[in-house]
Amino acid sequence: MFTSLLAWRGLLVVAGLSLASEGLYYLLRYLKRRRERRPQVLFFPVPVTCVRPLLLARPGRCDCGLSHQESALSSLARLLLSARRSLDVCVFTISSLELSGSVLAVHGRGVRVRVVTDSDYMALAGSQVGTFRKAGIEVRHDQDTNYMHHKFALVDGSVLVTGSLNWSAQGIYGNKENVIIIKNTDIVKAFVEEFERLWNEYDPTKYSFSPQG
Amino acid sequence: MFTSLLAWRGLLVVAGLSLASEGLYYLLRYLKRRRERRPQVLFFPVPVTCVRPLLLARPGRCDCGLSHQESALSSLARLLLSARRSLDVCVFTISSLELSGSVLAVHGRGVRVRVVTDSDYMALAGSQVGTFRKAGIEVRHDQDTNYMHHKFALVDGSVLVTGSLNWSAQGIYGNKENVIIIKNTDIVKAFVEEFERLWNEYDPTKYSFSPQG
Repeated sequence: MFTSLLAWRGLLVVAGLSLASEGLYYLLRYLKRRRERRPQVLFFPVPVTCVRPLLLARPGRCDCGLSHQESALSSLARLLLSARRSLDVCVFTISSLELSGSVLAVHGRGVRVRVVTDSDYMALAGSQVGTFRKAGIEVRHDQDTNYMHHKFALVDGSVLVTGSLNWSAQGIYGNKENVIIIKNTDIVKAFVEEFERLWNEYDPTKYSFSPQG
Repeated sequence: MFTSLLAWRGLLVVAGLSLASEGLYYLLRYLKRRRERRPQVLFFPVPVTCVRPLLLARPGRCDCGLSHQESALSSLARLLLSARRSLDVCVFTISSLELSGSVLAVHGRGVRVRVVTDSDYMALAGSQVGTFRKAGIEVRHDQDTNYMHHKFALVDGSVLVTGSLNWSAQGIYGNKENVIIIKNTDIVKAFVEEFERLWNEYDPTKYSFSPQG
């Protein structure tokens, strides 16, 4: 009787410890994932830096006189360049050669790139929309006098980059700006839906100035 | 000997259960806080709506012909109006009467309000910076040709509102825009530090066009 009771209690202790260790494992895994998902922020302006080595197909170096130090710009470029399945860009302005170069490099690797932008600003000197189109990247835009004023990008549909930063040299090197990076949360899903909504709304077959039927 | 062993094992089981229940309590509390901290997003434009009832000192209604439905604008106004200890506003443009009205209402309740803005855009027609200053709100601004291009606010130093939205009628009612709301995380602390840095940098006693010594 005693022995049987002892055995049961022993079993209970073992089961308890086993459950506790399993619980601890899942808690630690959960905390690790949560840490990875924690939003990050980049502030601008940054000193003028060269990110050319990041854009090369193979690791290389650059001997130009500019700084090649890590900065908010190189972090942002690295993030865009990390796209493996898709890169969806939804920006008011795209004139920065560093950021447009990152988008072109991702496209050059065969990743699907889509760009949504503003019709007024894409017509300004310095816009890289023409370069994108020449390279075969599909670009869609609004068609009214209000602005498509978002400044976000989605890397592989799971990492959101968004903030006040226009993708221009003035934004990167001159203005006070912020960019937030958010991973794998409901908020990313909301931006994915917003991108798809705009991509659909700006479908060229729906342009009101196109001849109807 | 057996009885003593039984008592010890019994104690171990009780201690284990007690620890497990305490662990569960903290886990649930942690998950609840995490849910509260989860970022939210507001998308614009919204249909033209009236938020006047929110700005009244006492609950009231408005008989104007505009819609009074809840919208991203009313959510944003409510959030600003929820400030109890401080409201720090750091925006490129402030011309929206709904959002400037919310800031004035918070100031009118005796809450400390500070505003950082852009020197070029504060000089444009429609800017509410003059109204802020007449009401006694301290406003500071950059003094160079680059833009103070942030569009964020900090409610009680713990809730961050940031995004692409300029605080203007065109931003709210016309453009494609986003605003993210983030609570109580490291990212909020980073924006609190950015605000204090700019507040200090734009101290009028440091203006380079002020006579020295």
